[in-house]
Amino acid sequence: MVTISDVAKEAGVSLSTASRALNNSVLVSQEKREQVLEAVRRLGYRPIRTSAARQAQQNKIIVVVTAMLNRDMLDCIRQTADELGYQIAMSYVGESYDEGYRNALALVRMLPSHLICGLIFIHNECRDPDMWKEFSTYPLVQIGEYKGVSPLRSIMIDDRAAAYDMTMYLLKQGYRRIVYVRTDRDERYSYGKPRLEGYCSALREAGVEVDTALILEGEYLLDGGVDVARQVLKMKKRPDAVFCTSDHLAAGCLAELEKQGVRVPEDIAVCGFDNHEVSEYCQPGLTTVAQPYGEMGVEAVRMLDMVMSGAIFSGRKIFAEHTLMIREST
Amino acid sequence: MVTISDVAKEAGVSLSTASRALNNSVLVSQEKREQVLEAVRRLGYRPIRTSAARQAQQNKIIVVVTAMLNRDMLDCIRQTADELGYQIAMSYVGESYDEGYRNALALVRMLPSHLICGLIFIHNECRDPDMWKEFSTYPLVQIGEYKGVSPLRSIMIDDRAAAYDMTMYLLKQGYRRIVYVRTDRDERYSYGKPRLEGYCSALREAGVEVDTALILEGEYLLDGGVDVARQVLKMKKRPDAVFCTSDHLAAGCLAELEKQGVRVPEDIAVCGFDNHEVSEYCQPGLTTVAQPYGEMGVEAVRMLDMVMSGAIFSGRKIFAEHTLMIREST
Repeated sequence: MVTISDVAKEAGVSLSTASRALNNSVLVSQEKREQVLEAVRRLGYRPIRTSAARQAQQNKIIVVVTAMLNRDMLDCIRQTADELGYQIAMSYVGESYDEGYRNALALVRMLPSHLICGLIFIHNECRDPDMWKEFSTYPLVQIGEYKGVSPLRSIMIDDRAAAYDMTMYLLKQGYRRIVYVRTDRDERYSYGKPRLEGYCSALREAGVEVDTALILEGEYLLDGGVDVARQVLKMKKRPDAVFCTSDHLAAGCLAELEKQGVRVPEDIAVCGFDNHEVSEYCQPGLTTVAQPYGEMGVEAVRMLDMVMSGAIFSGRKIFAEHTLMIREST
Repeated sequence: MVTISDVAKEAGVSLSTASRALNNSVLVSQEKREQVLEAVRRLGYRPIRTSAARQAQQNKIIVVVTAMLNRDMLDCIRQTADELGYQIAMSYVGESYDEGYRNALALVRMLPSHLICGLIFIHNECRDPDMWKEFSTYPLVQIGEYKGVSPLRSIMIDDRAAAYDMTMYLLKQGYRRIVYVRTDRDERYSYGKPRLEGYCSALREAGVEVDTALILEGEYLLDGGVDVARQVLKMKKRPDAVFCTSDHLAAGCLAELEKQGVRVPEDIAVCGFDNHEVSEYCQPGLTTVAQPYGEMGVEAVRMLDMVMSGAIFSGRKIFAEHTLMIREST
């Protein structure tokens, strides 16, 4: 059977672009829409038409509990749910996490349980084992980073490989003294350790010694990056690149370097992580690691659907493919 | 009775900061948290304790149908709902609007109607009168811009006054040839006309003639701003300021001007609208109009609660207070 993934491949566009084009999203250019429609014609793709039996099994709500607001991911989750016959009810946990997860649980309790198909957690920060136990009475799928509780089914990028690839890219560009900046969030989340490992292993592979003096920690946001830049400029032997595990931090670092008259990338290169919108608005544009947020959303809904239809019984972990987004800062 | 608004005033912080501080949000600095707690002590503020009767009336779901993902607004909506005893279920309509609103309606239909308290629409793009009619069987409150259908109860900034204030600020800074850039979205939304009127009326009041050659239109995003900058640089008599009704567009304009060697703000000033996150990450930082998103969220939930408790029967329109966020680009 021809799937929308085949259509995307044939049209040479991403899965989320293909999905958007078929849903008449205003975000897709006319040119790409036509590429997709041409691929649909060539392959004879037909959207899934579900049987009445399957429709009865579906017609349920997927509760999305999210600590992150990403348009692309949420849009793809909604569209895929729509294709497969589910509805989405979102609960945004905000920044005061415990309270947020309590609210999400209250929503789940309030909905008639026969209406709930399952839950998708995005960037899970739920730290209360009792709450987690109650959430777990429904099928769960988790997207991205998490804290504490290890989920049975999840979709995330391979953080180790992503940090390895970025470091290796910097090494190939000729950078040697590469500062690595963890954020204060790294400790809390699952990604902290593997990313640092990826950085170290790329250095070792290139025959560059890991210098712990080059491993810094900064606050997650803009100001944290300003501090980092100041620390970097005070180092006796000046580094030639700064790899931050957050775009916001990298943006602050970049701004402060330029302010102090240090040219980026000529004097020091800077790169970030996540391909957050701000990375495009920095000057120079920020090189970063892109996570395929749209695709991760699509896969999460599909995985939940497979659990519902009995196609998956056990745990499953999907690594989604990251890409390096090379801009002018390296 | 002492309210949280009184606490915010006493502590000299915004309503959303006060609410966050009381909810232990990580986004509030220790210093501000202490200011708020001190104000709580001074005023003897107590969070509302609701009667059993009122609890029965509540214990319902507010469905938030949103075309915009703003952390501050959504966090404040959740917190206020929590304080008043409601739960939030969000439906993100994404970028392919018709489909999105159909999904939102499907969710509303699927929920047992006795569980639904009402709906909050954020940036409404629903263009289908039949869908709107069905949504309207529940109490509705709308936040921000809308398209087409005029809502009975709404909360938004006074767009005319905001554009007037920004233009007047530019005039007072000595700028005289001020380009005004509409976006292709202005036509679709309610804010397009009043903002342009605000710009024109400030010019007239300052004795500066409105020159229609200075009123441009650009695409909403980064590239649109690049185009605008090129148009501005081609003008025979060079403008000294560019007022864009979108931060994204302003950011693109700013980047292109700097790229072409034009200094901002020395040669040309640039300002935007909305105080979107990107405005902080531009270099130089972008002067813009800030909408009080958190407060608008708080007010929307309260208004819905007042409808529920019979305190409001008729329509009501609240103008939330905008502020000018002056940064380095002007």
